[in-house]
Amino acid sequence: MAQQERAIRTRRVIVVAAAEVFAEVGYEAATIVGILNRAGVTKGALYFHFSSKQELAQAVLAGRLSATPRTPPRGLKLQQGLDELFLLAHLLREGDPLVRGSVRLAVEQGALHDGLDRRVPMAEWIERKTVTLAEAKQNGELLPHVEVGEAARMLIGAFTGVQELSRVMTGHADLMERVADLQRHLMPSIAVPAVLVQLDMTVDRGERVCRESRQQRLAADVTGAAE
Amino acid sequence: MAQQERAIRTRRVIVVAAAEVFAEVGYEAATIVGILNRAGVTKGALYFHFSSKQELAQAVLAGRLSATPRTPPRGLKLQQGLDELFLLAHLLREGDPLVRGSVRLAVEQGALHDGLDRRVPMAEWIERKTVTLAEAKQNGELLPHVEVGEAARMLIGAFTGVQELSRVMTGHADLMERVADLQRHLMPSIAVPAVLVQLDMTVDRGERVCRESRQQRLAADVTGAAE
Repeated sequence: MAQQERAIRTRRVIVVAAAEVFAEVGYEAATIVGILNRAGVTKGALYFHFSSKQELAQAVLAGRLSATPRTPPRGLKLQQGLDELFLLAHLLREGDPLVRGSVRLAVEQGALHDGLDRRVPMAEWIERKTVTLAEAKQNGELLPHVEVGEAARMLIGAFTGVQELSRVMTGHADLMERVADLQRHLMPSIAVPAVLVQLDMTVDRGERVCRESRQQRLAADVTGAAE
Repeated sequence: MAQQERAIRTRRVIVVAAAEVFAEVGYEAATIVGILNRAGVTKGALYFHFSSKQELAQAVLAGRLSATPRTPPRGLKLQQGLDELFLLAHLLREGDPLVRGSVRLAVEQGALHDGLDRRVPMAEWIERKTVTLAEAKQNGELLPHVEVGEAARMLIGAFTGVQELSRVMTGHADLMERVADLQRHLMPSIAVPAVLVQLDMTVDRGERVCRESRQQRLAADVTGAAE
């Protein structure tokens, strides 16, 4: 059991190191040696878990969703959906390696036929968003015309772009303002008025949700350890 | 004069060839030799116009706006602004080399300190959009709370992301649907209702605007030649 735990921890160290390297130099310029040096593990340990750079990149791409802690549940499902994106933006701005690495890998076009499936994190986010929006619809939070699948795709797409623009123009310095601004423009065509006025879309929302999620996780760990 | 015209034409051939190569393999993997072969010009001709790969990339980045023909003027300035984005999406989907090359260069992060200023096309688009929105505001087409600079940045950012998502998920096959969908979600929080109901945001708008712009340009050329 202790051995298995160590293996899980080593795997995680390697994925985070790979994410850092991919975030810094992109997929093509990254090397296994560079990732080995960053992780501080042996070649044997790395190859025990991953057989190639492509496999490492795929693990980073798949790791974005799990890198984002679950946000606390809210009465308004639309707020919960917003909180997830605000939290993602906050982690990106803070420089969370898995989030940054995964976003860079997903957006960069790379070489033709490099074998990376960049759809993974996008598809997962769209799915998560679709589920939250469907719950919101069931609660009567959405305007009648809203088609949840389309709205989810649109929200994830627009978020991706606003984030890219903020990176190019300001190195993510104005990211939280841009994300809040986007949501303030989109929500009026999604939420019913009575819900709209209750939504918190202020610029420090991401930071507050992040603190809350971490406290929630810590509390769960303490409870788990006490059991 | 004939010599000067030839030089302008050669420069254009080189920029388009560079845009094609950058669109296919990205900035880092592109080589001057590859661009030379694509353009079918002599090394001397290329170096007469450009001293480095970086200069070529900067010319491609700067060429996006001029690659997009001016859309015909409209009574509603909001429609004119929409038409510009629908046209850009249409050109991207058609595979226009300058548009595709410039978009890839602008979005890819590249190596740290590669010297490319990726803000250029983004800044130009934001500026163009700000001007159109300011005119729309003066015409009374906008809701009173709309801040034109912020709205312009948000529209360009969201467009960029929806386009990226469509490329990753479907290779741009559903681009026109995604762009139309985005605009239909954003316009209700920008346009006054009487303008909103008049806006054309259908999926074939980009194609129609493109045809119209080309006819307009052709007519101008014919008139110019007759004078």
